[in-house]
Amino acid sequence: MVKHEGEKKYERAFGLERLVFFSDAVFAIAITLMAIELIPPHELEPNTSESLLQALLADWPHFFAFVLSFWIIAVYWTAHHRYFRYIIRYDDGLIARNLLLLFFVVLVPFTTLMLGEQGDLFVATWFYAFNIMALGLCGALIWHHSTQNYRLVDPDLDSRLIRQIYLRAFATPLAAVIVILAAPLIAASANIFFLLIFIFQRVLARVSPISVQEV
Amino acid sequence: MVKHEGEKKYERAFGLERLVFFSDAVFAIAITLMAIELIPPHELEPNTSESLLQALLADWPHFFAFVLSFWIIAVYWTAHHRYFRYIIRYDDGLIARNLLLLFFVVLVPFTTLMLGEQGDLFVATWFYAFNIMALGLCGALIWHHSTQNYRLVDPDLDSRLIRQIYLRAFATPLAAVIVILAAPLIAASANIFFLLIFIFQRVLARVSPISVQEV
Amino acid sequence: MVKHEGEKKYERAFGLERLVFFSDAVFAIAITLMAIELIPPHELEPNTSESLLQALLADWPHFFAFVLSFWIIAVYWTAHHRYFRYIIRYDDGLIARNLLLLFFVVLVPFTTLMLGEQGDLFVATWFYAFNIMALGLCGALIWHHSTQNYRLVDPDLDSRLIRQIYLRAFATPLAAVIVILAAPLIAASANIFFLLIFIFQRVLARVSPISVQEV
Amino acid sequence: MVKHEGEKKYERAFGLERLVFFSDAVFAIAITLMAIELIPPHELEPNTSESLLQALLADWPHFFAFVLSFWIIAVYWTAHHRYFRYIIRYDDGLIARNLLLLFFVVLVPFTTLMLGEQGDLFVATWFYAFNIMALGLCGALIWHHSTQNYRLVDPDLDSRLIRQIYLRAFATPLAAVIVILAAPLIAASANIFFLLIFIFQRVLARVSPISVQEV
Repeated sequence: MVKHEGEKKYERAFGLERLVFFSDAVFAIAITLMAIELIPPHELEPNTSESLLQALLADWPHFFAFVLSFWIIAVYWTAHHRYFRYIIRYDDGLIARNLLLLFFVVLVPFTTLMLGEQGDLFVATWFYAFNIMALGLCGALIWHHSTQNYRLVDPDLDSRLIRQIYLRAFATPLAAVIVILAAPLIAASANIFFLLIFIFQRVLARVSPISVQEV
Repeated sequence: MVKHEGEKKYERAFGLERLVFFSDAVFAIAITLMAIELIPPHELEPNTSESLLQALLADWPHFFAFVLSFWIIAVYWTAHHRYFRYIIRYDDGLIARNLLLLFFVVLVPFTTLMLGEQGDLFVATWFYAFNIMALGLCGALIWHHSTQNYRLVDPDLDSRLIRQIYLRAFATPLAAVIVILAAPLIAASANIFFLLIFIFQRVLARVSPISVQEV
Repeated sequence: MVKHEGEKKYERAFGLERLVFFSDAVFAIAITLMAIELIPPHELEPNTSESLLQALLADWPHFFAFVLSFWIIAVYWTAHHRYFRYIIRYDDGLIARNLLLLFFVVLVPFTTLMLGEQGDLFVATWFYAFNIMALGLCGALIWHHSTQNYRLVDPDLDSRLIRQIYLRAFATPLAAVIVILAAPLIAASANIFFLLIFIFQRVLARVSPISVQEV
Repeated sequence: MVKHEGEKKYERAFGLERLVFFSDAVFAIAITLMAIELIPPHELEPNTSESLLQALLADWPHFFAFVLSFWIIAVYWTAHHRYFRYIIRYDDGLIARNLLLLFFVVLVPFTTLMLGEQGDLFVATWFYAFNIMALGLCGALIWHHSTQNYRLVDPDLDSRLIRQIYLRAFATPLAAVIVILAAPLIAASANIFFLLIFIFQRVLARVSPISVQEV
């Protein structure tokens, strides 16, 4: 095969684009399907606005779980977006690691539903926390595979930026670990520690900002 | 990192494209999932075409809610399409605001189902109307963030066009406000005011047209 | 706004691409969701392979409706693909007509489920047939709007090709009309005439082929 | 129609891209919807973490079926990605064969659910295995149609590479055949042979590697 450098580059870009859009579709579907599992209250007794409101309030664990999962997936989608801003090539290893990440994305609606329904049992919290942790570790795996010896990134990529992105990848699993340790002790209240994910992200965004425009 | 201007531009375009396609996927899924919640009548008594037709007619609130939501999401998708016709860069602020918009898109199938089932209770109408209003406000937030000091748009963008797009963003929330105020007074009949959304859009399209071809 | 011809072209292409990918996502979701409504037989009595097979066979109307709808949507997706091979610009009119088409795409899982469950009642057949007919007419609307005075297509586009594509757009509604007329007379057996859709497509592909490579 | 070579190429690329992204969306939805069919245990008796864990363990056939299907679809998506790395044109034949492949992708959530629920009945195993086999054969059909006389691929494409990709396409159906033969003899235990799919893929990746970078 004799090809021009330009053509090769186009083909590579197309394959990578496909990998990315496939991932986006999975993220988008997972994020939207969770909302489908929210069921409006049925058979109100009496059929008034007050009892509808009460039924909705009584159902708060489902809403909490949904809102939490939406924003956690949003954090991971943003992270995925960040990795692939710098990844410029792909190989079978990247495809495999990315599929592993998507496997845990696809599981989120299930563990979310369980958290919403049995959030008072620490095993439900554990499953959810392990899912979240696995997402973070898969992100770190993708980044490690891509940046090790600059395998799939630009050789000029700033090594400080590589470390900053690592740091973010580990922030979310850390919050999950805290929840896992706390869950058997304080039961459902442990779920509140999931909010650390957003605090960690925000703190890191302040302490070591990664400017999009820098690229 | 020493890079050519052209390459940088390509990378920026790819990141922006991804943001847009991810949003499109979420819009597409939300719009399609709503139809899934439409359930054909079961166990007809007697099992005739007449009773099927009657059962479908008796189920009109679900169909009304579905058709309404399809076209409201269509209005917002069209608006989103319009914003990103002029947005040529992105930053973390845009990603965050866009995710907030998607959060409310994803909620629509839930509030739609509630409107279809408990549309006679004004609390169901309120939840739906707040959802629609939030969508409009998120659109305005995206547009504000992008055009303020021409942060993410072309510096030559016509300031009249910027205002025209604002106007459209606020038309839909206005209709929602009217519904919210009317709902406790006239109950289910207030839902009819949601149709103002389409009237407002049509009037604005006449009064201050935004030509696609102008770009 | 002073812009180079090339940049304008890029922006137009991006907006059109988005319209197309959004449509593809809706088609893809509708086609996949229908399969989700297929439910494996439950509580077999006795729990043997024979009774599972019998239960599946007894459920054939659902499978017939699913397979039919998959391939009808496939026909329309292929038609959509064909229109947008020649459409090189877009305007608000195209966006609106395309959304109308998507509205009927999104309805297909519902009318399919009803056909699978109440296909013996001609009203169910009618709803399904009207849905299919509406899809065909929306396709024709899109093509009419785009090719009238070469509004959104290349001015050099072969007028014979324009007519050939029209012909295809009307073949499917014709089959639906035959079903609608036959349904009150011969009930469920009328559904067999839906297969005319595929026969018509095949005959047209022979009689007036549209080569992809010609473009 | 007088057109520049470059423009024609762009249009062809766009049509092909659309075919590919549509397929990706279908793959993504099928893979995510399967997870939706996983239902957390309800009405635990007593309501403790131990009984939740036991209920989850008792439900292992559903999880086995889900994990199996996720990775099988992942194998096919990867194969699809591989085919379209080399396919540079398209025609109606490719569109038709690709739609046939997608038909069997869309069926996977249904056969998976049946395997999860009636995996002890060999008919459920058979349906699943036939589905998997059909996927593999459709892949081979796509590859055959595209590479025969270099119809849709680069004329310089290495004939060794063409054979290597064929080999992979047939590995998965082979595993399905083994399961089909074993199922009536050893019932549910036959499902274990599905794991051969992953072993075959791994062995082939070693024995006849297809480097992405080679392109």
